[in-house]
Amino acid sequence: MTAGPAMMRLAALVEARETGRARPDHMVALSRDAIARLDGRIHAFAHVAEDPAVSAEGPLAGIAIGVKDIFDTYDQPTCYGSPAYAGNRPATDAAIVALARRAGATIIGKTVTTEFAYFEPGPTVNPHNHAHTPGGSSSGSAAAVASGMVPAAIGTQTGGSVIRPAAFCGVAGYKPSYRLLPTTGMKHFAPSLDTAGLFAASVADVAVFAERLTGRALAAGPVDASTITVGVYFCPQLDGADEAMRLALEQAAEAAVAAGFTVVAVAEPRPLMLAREAHGLIQDCEAGLACGPDLDRFSDSMSPRLREAIRSGLMVSPQDYDDARRLAKRGRGAARTLFDDVDVLLTPSAPGAAPEGLASTGDPRFNKLWTLMGTPAVNIPGFSDAAHMPLGVQAVARFGHDRTLLSVASRLEQAFAEAR
Amino acid sequence: MTAGPAMMRLAALVEARETGRARPDHMVALSRDAIARLDGRIHAFAHVAEDPAVSAEGPLAGIAIGVKDIFDTYDQPTCYGSPAYAGNRPATDAAIVALARRAGATIIGKTVTTEFAYFEPGPTVNPHNHAHTPGGSSSGSAAAVASGMVPAAIGTQTGGSVIRPAAFCGVAGYKPSYRLLPTTGMKHFAPSLDTAGLFAASVADVAVFAERLTGRALAAGPVDASTITVGVYFCPQLDGADEAMRLALEQAAEAAVAAGFTVVAVAEPRPLMLAREAHGLIQDCEAGLACGPDLDRFSDSMSPRLREAIRSGLMVSPQDYDDARRLAKRGRGAARTLFDDVDVLLTPSAPGAAPEGLASTGDPRFNKLWTLMGTPAVNIPGFSDAAHMPLGVQAVARFGHDRTLLSVASRLEQAFAEAR
Repeated sequence: MTAGPAMMRLAALVEARETGRARPDHMVALSRDAIARLDGRIHAFAHVAEDPAVSAEGPLAGIAIGVKDIFDTYDQPTCYGSPAYAGNRPATDAAIVALARRAGATIIGKTVTTEFAYFEPGPTVNPHNHAHTPGGSSSGSAAAVASGMVPAAIGTQTGGSVIRPAAFCGVAGYKPSYRLLPTTGMKHFAPSLDTAGLFAASVADVAVFAERLTGRALAAGPVDASTITVGVYFCPQLDGADEAMRLALEQAAEAAVAAGFTVVAVAEPRPLMLAREAHGLIQDCEAGLACGPDLDRFSDSMSPRLREAIRSGLMVSPQDYDDARRLAKRGRGAARTLFDDVDVLLTPSAPGAAPEGLASTGDPRFNKLWTLMGTPAVNIPGFSDAAHMPLGVQAVARFGHDRTLLSVASRLEQAFAEAR
Repeated sequence: MTAGPAMMRLAALVEARETGRARPDHMVALSRDAIARLDGRIHAFAHVAEDPAVSAEGPLAGIAIGVKDIFDTYDQPTCYGSPAYAGNRPATDAAIVALARRAGATIIGKTVTTEFAYFEPGPTVNPHNHAHTPGGSSSGSAAAVASGMVPAAIGTQTGGSVIRPAAFCGVAGYKPSYRLLPTTGMKHFAPSLDTAGLFAASVADVAVFAERLTGRALAAGPVDASTITVGVYFCPQLDGADEAMRLALEQAAEAAVAAGFTVVAVAEPRPLMLAREAHGLIQDCEAGLACGPDLDRFSDSMSPRLREAIRSGLMVSPQDYDDARRLAKRGRGAARTLFDDVDVLLTPSAPGAAPEGLASTGDPRFNKLWTLMGTPAVNIPGFSDAAHMPLGVQAVARFGHDRTLLSVASRLEQAFAEAR
């Protein structure tokens, strides 16, 4: 277990409110106090609501949520991490924000995103060591949960922007099946990849959050480990993982065996290798289309790397884009076949712990394939390296099997804790 | 041939400019003059640009385009057909608007859309008979082309909002394969269905427009009819088509035979019947999510039918939505199998000609299946009923086979004209 800050537990808060032991306004006040105390150092918030509405009713009443500032909010500025949108006030909420409000949640603030959810970082630091990146692009959402300021946060992933910051900050990050959460009203970067995701302290917490936000049966259920096959996923990217991360993956597999799961090794099929390579071109081309209008208007206030990404996206030929999409489609076919034999795959969430320095948000190499495949994935926190920085193991399941994923991952999370 | 107004021919204009016989500024002036002369009666435009930029360069230089007012434009108001958005000025263009500008087109105005591209009509009339609906939701785009005000226009289809108004107004309307045209920066209604589409005088014209807008090889190419199988599609909805429409479909089939195509009858497979039935629930549920934020803020300025649609969408259970999506997925599988045997399907574009009255935009029963399937479709104009109102025949092809569709449909369009 990493010696991190004390986190707010969403499932416990929800239970406390439902059993009359906690009042929504007091719960939200806890978050307000924590933000006032901590965010001067963490910089997880781009904006904090001055007097946020607190609902007495609803499945998420009293839950203070940080929303990545890539989603529109009608009552708080929405700047997409970009000076071009300083002071921007959208007319309405993004769909997922409205969903959270309808469930009774309090939108306590907008969390820091990298510029347009691409790579140019914001000011957020890693709560476990302020000299290290929190990861990105959902930097503030991961750090706000990790530092104990909020029990839940919303982010997005186009490459690895949920799973990676979750791993670096030692929290659970859940990237659902494509389209399970609505993205209308987010600033799109690559629409066929852009996926909304959720953060909470543990897998069990993030599953409760998902269930209460969507009305879907997603809370982690009981798991009979003897009926579940867990595959340890061997892909070429593993060569780029550091020693600590490989050790964590090994320990995770051992803990799964000890918990009674059937554990097998799975070699990455070639169509999935090819699909991973196609991710970049699909992202570039779609970013050229989706953010070309920004380049036309706001080029001067863009970071050089964002400007270059959009420009190069505009140069991709339709033929190359179509070829890449065909590779992705074949990859999805191979993924379906893969999940005929295993229920859940385990891979690193990132090549290692959060790198030192704030100029880079780290490497999405372990994430982008699963974003492109649209399969659900969750970062299971709990491991750490020699410097006590969090390491995350990523669990992935078949498209649409989100509840299985969250249930198995939650059971694995317990198993990992028991094994320490 | 319907005795309609004289239309501007995009392909001819493009050729005239490229051979030095027409100057971009003069071409755009033609549209400005036509709008000034005609739009007081047609009401196709929600806004006309005061002094629109004209490019000297680019594959669409000199082409004045009407853009459905469901797409953002940074330099013209964008109101989504809704009083809630009166005076709305987005920060940037929608992706497809930026694409058109980059190709040198002139955005001459915003065309009338029904409210949020749903059913509440705007003021546009049918250019062939002002007492009849132009269809919707892309009412203004279809009418602007049909009345000879612009050579091209951009619209969207979630149910039948491109094909139906194109048929009612006697122009070509092309709904491409899902995602072929970008939708970032449109006001989404049901994101998994929302498809951008194009209008021009003829299929050949709309294909040239598509090619020059996207850089894809989409212009209609030569067709060896002897190698092409055309299927006349028999679905239960045909019972709801009127006599004139059924006659037009028969004449279309005969003309195709005369032109040397192999023509076969195709009965709708059951998975496609079930998929059509699933469209409504998918649309409703997604509209609840995508437009729920508008309901929360602007309920008072919504029409009762839009308000009701969003409200009922918010009541759809995730289970019912997932079931509907599964039916859609099975339908897509059945569509793939269907196109193993035929290259292009022919069906009515609408149950008949444009109904009298402006309170309803007509019936999308022949369109929504193909929107849900994501397959490319085009309205082939050229038929008419006893009252000389246009009737359209819809051609549909396999996902991604847009060029085949446009080439065959263009050849069929000639064959229909020759048969008259």
